[in-house]
Amino acid sequence: MIASEVVKKPIAITMGCPVGVGPEIILRFFADAGVLNDAVVVLGDIGVMRRCAAQLGIQISIVDWQPGQEVAPGVIPVLSLSALGADDCRWGEPNRETGLAMARYIEEAVRLLGEGLLAGMTTCPIAKSALKAAGYSYPGHTEMLAELTGSNNFAMMLAGNSLRVTLVTIHCPLEKVPYLLSVEAVKRLISITGEALRDDFGITSPRIAVAGLNPHAGEGGMFGDEEERFIAPAIDRSRADGWQVEGPFPPDTVFFKAANGDFDAVVCMYHDQGLIPFKLLHFADGVNVTLGLPIVRTSVDHGTAYDIAGQGIASSESLAAAVQVAAEIVRNRQRQERGA
Amino acid sequence: MIASEVVKKPIAITMGCPVGVGPEIILRFFADAGVLNDAVVVLGDIGVMRRCAAQLGIQISIVDWQPGQEVAPGVIPVLSLSALGADDCRWGEPNRETGLAMARYIEEAVRLLGEGLLAGMTTCPIAKSALKAAGYSYPGHTEMLAELTGSNNFAMMLAGNSLRVTLVTIHCPLEKVPYLLSVEAVKRLISITGEALRDDFGITSPRIAVAGLNPHAGEGGMFGDEEERFIAPAIDRSRADGWQVEGPFPPDTVFFKAANGDFDAVVCMYHDQGLIPFKLLHFADGVNVTLGLPIVRTSVDHGTAYDIAGQGIASSESLAAAVQVAAEIVRNRQRQERGA
Repeated sequence: MIASEVVKKPIAITMGCPVGVGPEIILRFFADAGVLNDAVVVLGDIGVMRRCAAQLGIQISIVDWQPGQEVAPGVIPVLSLSALGADDCRWGEPNRETGLAMARYIEEAVRLLGEGLLAGMTTCPIAKSALKAAGYSYPGHTEMLAELTGSNNFAMMLAGNSLRVTLVTIHCPLEKVPYLLSVEAVKRLISITGEALRDDFGITSPRIAVAGLNPHAGEGGMFGDEEERFIAPAIDRSRADGWQVEGPFPPDTVFFKAANGDFDAVVCMYHDQGLIPFKLLHFADGVNVTLGLPIVRTSVDHGTAYDIAGQGIASSESLAAAVQVAAEIVRNRQRQERGA
Repeated sequence: MIASEVVKKPIAITMGCPVGVGPEIILRFFADAGVLNDAVVVLGDIGVMRRCAAQLGIQISIVDWQPGQEVAPGVIPVLSLSALGADDCRWGEPNRETGLAMARYIEEAVRLLGEGLLAGMTTCPIAKSALKAAGYSYPGHTEMLAELTGSNNFAMMLAGNSLRVTLVTIHCPLEKVPYLLSVEAVKRLISITGEALRDDFGITSPRIAVAGLNPHAGEGGMFGDEEERFIAPAIDRSRADGWQVEGPFPPDTVFFKAANGDFDAVVCMYHDQGLIPFKLLHFADGVNVTLGLPIVRTSVDHGTAYDIAGQGIASSESLAAAVQVAAEIVRNRQRQERGA
């Protein structure tokens, strides 16, 4: 890495649900990483972090950090935004207080990003139920961030070393998927995927594959016609816009091709079409990237894992990958801005 | 391998479409295998095989074989059932004659299996269009075999070293999948999968996973209710029947678990749910096994590949795996019959 390219402003890790695996994967991440190349801070609860470190026997200095301060190496710098007591904070048992606290970490990260005091954010998992208990009605993390940043053209990418996928539809019954597709929706996802590959991942001329919806991509209309009605026209129009895009491909072979380097990303029609192959290849080290936000946001691709929280067995691999991808995106966007 | 367990009756490879990749993958399979542990014969066209060998420069003796004869080692024994001329047989160009011939290989294999002169069959790919040109109306190989053997409770399994999947619905538009599910259909697949794992694959106490239909297996009804209406009740009833079966699992994590040894097979709700992860892990060496037939039948899991037929670049890996799985199933069924 070239020294001048090191991120100066810190990446913020939001601690996520205080009674989930967030605190322990953050401790594990810093403990395993030693001295980081990039400045990384935590937005969370310093008391929770210290109690968790003591409980798990992790010896690392956890220090107070304030926005704008230099980040010291070899410690965990925490901007402490709540002071949850040990009694209100039992592993795996979220309540109104933990819900309010975890929302505060996210809101403050967005505010500091807006003020230019952070470079990007990587989020630890939250639970919808805990958010709801605190009076928030967002269906999830991503929608909350979209509202906080005033974005309505966002999308989810799952990114790993072998495979990147983006999703045209996400959290809906499989039955509804065919009715949510349109030329516009597919075309929008192709553009947003192409822009992310180019601007955020630094791929000058991205190659995009688009999966069909049906078995064998419909086999010429025998097994469904969404390929002819929506997907092929969206591909044609995206090509006219200058994107290097191919498909609709039979869904059962396109991921093998992409994982073997034929494509930089696969645009998928539904949640499991993309997540089944992605999690098979990147079960532990997958990163969730929110595309289309004015801020840089990556996330671990797992949940709060309440069943194992506090036991010290959760892997920090996805968090480490998510921080690394956030830092790469920050560097690539900075290069773009410098016109490099 | 124990000598007494070597298959005595031969496994028949049907040559499939004479102008597809069938002839060349058979040549490659015999040439690479050297002396086989099991007796293997070809039901096809000896002239086509010899011309293909000459064209590709494959030096191996191709000899006439008749049912009941001993199988000599180190040669390709062919029961020749057609005499297609070089002029009627151009790579990638199926016609009525090639369609009639390939149907004859299959019909004769089933007849000889019925007479006890073969142990099992492994099929090379056919094309539906060629079958149609010869006046047959079967949607595919499997349905043809089901009719020829009078079977109506059959199912498709894709089997590899890491993963086995079976499919509740197969070749239909994704839109139709939710309407084809029922407690009976899922329960039937669980039983047929369990019986195959036990009787054909020799797994005494098979562990079966069942995938949900929707993202996160419906997340408690938020993203669809087929899990509650059809899948969970089918699992409960199958357990009552004595099967060791778990689910419905979120589709995006169950294949990772199965591939890591937690389950012997995953019962899938639709084509791509099973084939996306299967082909990602077993692109070249996957085997298609037809369950529920009175005969042993395995197949390569690829098509006629007309675009590359005759060039000698098609891989015989899937054929080799399919012959091996057929031989294993024959041995396991023989053990069952001996009450071992």
